[in-house]
Amino acid sequence: MKRLEHLGIAVQDLAEAERIFTDVLGVAPYKRELVEDEGVRTSFFQTGDAKVELLASLNEEGPIARHLARRGPGLHHVAFLVDDLEEELRRLTSQGYRVISGPKPGADNKQIAFLHPSETGKVLVELCEEMKED
Amino acid sequence: MKRLEHLGIAVQDLAEAERIFTDVLGVAPYKRELVEDEGVRTSFFQTGDAKVELLASLNEEGPIARHLARRGPGLHHVAFLVDDLEEELRRLTSQGYRVISGPKPGADNKQIAFLHPSETGKVLVELCEEMKED
Repeated sequence: MKRLEHLGIAVQDLAEAERIFTDVLGVAPYKRELVEDEGVRTSFFQTGDAKVELLASLNEEGPIARHLARRGPGLHHVAFLVDDLEEELRRLTSQGYRVISGPKPGADNKQIAFLHPSETGKVLVELCEEMKED
Repeated sequence: MKRLEHLGIAVQDLAEAERIFTDVLGVAPYKRELVEDEGVRTSFFQTGDAKVELLASLNEEGPIARHLARRGPGLHHVAFLVDDLEEELRRLTSQGYRVISGPKPGADNKQIAFLHPSETGKVLVELCEEMKED
């Protein structure tokens, strides 16, 4: 593991959440990104070498929509950057952890995978690797 | 705001959570700390310039015990490091944010305060400042 890459926050209203976190952090989001495969619209704040990622749902069915329906808005997942995602997933699955989603392309030019929270203390953990240019 | 300082995770069993996050992160906790005022036992992992803080409750009544009873284990709060905590709290309360707890001494040699999650998208936000040596 290289570092805590970002903290994902599920929000109902992206514009309202951007206003709140711009106030709290004293900086504006530096990037917005639509991730159609995941059904989310995202907004990123740089907060040291880790980022805060706000996630709003584009539909009624995606993972963020389901999280909002079940748990409401708030902290959603934590992502750790790794050098070699496939290798990390092999290592962790051999120790009994399960991949709940991915590996697949995610926001911010990353290849991402999520571990099943049942084995990670109910924390939704994303592992991500920077995608190489061809 | 200087940077995302740590991510707090509420856990039922600190030893079990340490085992899980040692597996997932591939590093061991570098510090354990008892914060009696808060009724918590904590364990810290270095993950880039941000840390992961595991929090277990020492009793049945503290904020972590209440969180576990209401929401179960999982992501609990996010802390951002600031240069001047009092000044940041003045700035934010003048914009309508409320302080729910603090300023007070916290773990890891910090002066800390929490904002009321009702105004911060249901995210429990801690602001913290390094305590100066006398």
